[in-house]
Amino acid sequence: MIRIGICGYGNLGRGVESEISKSEDMELVAIFTKREPSSLKTNSNAQVVNTKDINEWVDKIDVMIMCGGSATDLPEQVPEMAKLFNTIDSFDTHAKIPEYYQNVNESAKANNKVSIISIGWDPGLFSLLRLYSNTILPVGETYTFWGKGVSQGHSDAIRRIEGVKNAVQYTIPKDEAVERVMSGENPELTVRDKHLRECFVVAEEGADKAVIEEKIKTMPNYFSDYDTIVHFIDEEELKRDHSKMPHGGFVIRSGTTHNGENNHIIEFSLKLQSNPEFTASVLLAYARANYRLQQDKNYGAKSIFEIPPYYLSSKSIDELNQSLL
Amino acid sequence: MIRIGICGYGNLGRGVESEISKSEDMELVAIFTKREPSSLKTNSNAQVVNTKDINEWVDKIDVMIMCGGSATDLPEQVPEMAKLFNTIDSFDTHAKIPEYYQNVNESAKANNKVSIISIGWDPGLFSLLRLYSNTILPVGETYTFWGKGVSQGHSDAIRRIEGVKNAVQYTIPKDEAVERVMSGENPELTVRDKHLRECFVVAEEGADKAVIEEKIKTMPNYFSDYDTIVHFIDEEELKRDHSKMPHGGFVIRSGTTHNGENNHIIEFSLKLQSNPEFTASVLLAYARANYRLQQDKNYGAKSIFEIPPYYLSSKSIDELNQSLL
Repeated sequence: MIRIGICGYGNLGRGVESEISKSEDMELVAIFTKREPSSLKTNSNAQVVNTKDINEWVDKIDVMIMCGGSATDLPEQVPEMAKLFNTIDSFDTHAKIPEYYQNVNESAKANNKVSIISIGWDPGLFSLLRLYSNTILPVGETYTFWGKGVSQGHSDAIRRIEGVKNAVQYTIPKDEAVERVMSGENPELTVRDKHLRECFVVAEEGADKAVIEEKIKTMPNYFSDYDTIVHFIDEEELKRDHSKMPHGGFVIRSGTTHNGENNHIIEFSLKLQSNPEFTASVLLAYARANYRLQQDKNYGAKSIFEIPPYYLSSKSIDELNQSLL
Repeated sequence: MIRIGICGYGNLGRGVESEISKSEDMELVAIFTKREPSSLKTNSNAQVVNTKDINEWVDKIDVMIMCGGSATDLPEQVPEMAKLFNTIDSFDTHAKIPEYYQNVNESAKANNKVSIISIGWDPGLFSLLRLYSNTILPVGETYTFWGKGVSQGHSDAIRRIEGVKNAVQYTIPKDEAVERVMSGENPELTVRDKHLRECFVVAEEGADKAVIEEKIKTMPNYFSDYDTIVHFIDEEELKRDHSKMPHGGFVIRSGTTHNGENNHIIEFSLKLQSNPEFTASVLLAYARANYRLQQDKNYGAKSIFEIPPYYLSSKSIDELNQSLL
């Protein structure tokens, strides 16, 4: 049995806890939290431990699944954690990945640990598909679309506006852009061409809705470059219709062979009813790969590009060649 | 430069010859043929060599791309070739892959060669997607659909019928089946439910078309389990409208998390205007992986499941993490 620890008990940590029972070769040993352990209501029998006592668990956990946020938790925690544990995380700040990889690699290498970074669906499965499709069709264009789905970052940004009580933001790919890409036209698309942003906002009583809408639509980075639709609804409707966390998207490579004579479309798409539970499922499969890399003594930081696909399975290569090839 | 040889000069061999120039780190050294070399009209400056002289090329070729057929060529050729050369092939007789893998592995291991087997899109990329999606969503169903595209095997089967001058057969996924799968319903589908077979047939003068149609529709294995549509057309129309070799298809995994509460759809699809040129493109990317496995002295037969994705690229892992992760 691969002994799993969860570090951080938010949506993602709960997803890992929920999905681990699907894997017969894994057991959840403990959940680590910065909060008072007795205050945590968990959904399993796993022991809840305060992170300050984590050193006592060094020999009891094969892979620590890091479930903190990318903004502040992971860049601090993982380089430290990789000194004690084999880790896996979903660090998703694209621009900072090279630096993060290097920091984690130094800790992991020096301590004979395996740390798989930036696992999930983007970065993660979408990255894989970008790599496969770009190397197979060297002449072409790759497009990534996200949605329809809830963006936590954009929802949070709206909630920080004065007069906003609650909000949920959906990122929606524009059909016209997708169709142009699928036709093999290889269009140049701006961010505005590719995605629409739809916001469901609960305003505080007496707040000026026109001001809120203006603040959303002109917010730099988050909304100003997009077509944005704002709906004001009440808290009840928000809870009823917008409390799930669906997401998805697609990676499309449109490329040619024979001097441009023949066009080929490679498409990978995800339609997820629960973003955190699906991400947790990807983390668990790569936790198994982590364990197998430990057996190889192949230490250090690893990105998804470095993991042989069969390391995700508990089956032998002969069984896989027979059943899935 | 990775020095490439092509063994077998049919549609696939010509595809490799056409696409190799896209890869700046590869050069085509020679084309090997069982035919009289001077009789081959090639599209490049590569030397054409009779396969009986292949031993003289042992030190001049890094990866030999085996472009023969799966029925008789590859099972005979590759275990022999793997004693002399690092090889890659597109062996696609699913049921015989385990035995084939073992035969090739023995030759390659004993002679310090790398032999990557069964590369293309199915087996190949579709196999990869089946592996990734099955390990990530352990609870669910996987569906593979082929088409719309030309099946060479089925076209050949029709051409062998008495009174048939020429024929092209398209395999077509049924929309209704695809929609049911995409809805997350996880239906049980028979072969008849999943695919339609459409045949364009040129009859010999004076042949009885009703008899031909009956022979096609009742042909065991190939047609009898399917809904089959037969059109009789003339040779001119066949040449004009049906001489391309498009193909494609999709792998769909429909799975659940949280005790079945949330459904997720993973879909991978290909729309190819030239089946042999796309397959050749996949072979070339994995030829690069073959070369990198040689540097690792990681000898023996390998299936697509064993190849770390970044081995398909000529870029370093740092560059890939920066640009594609």
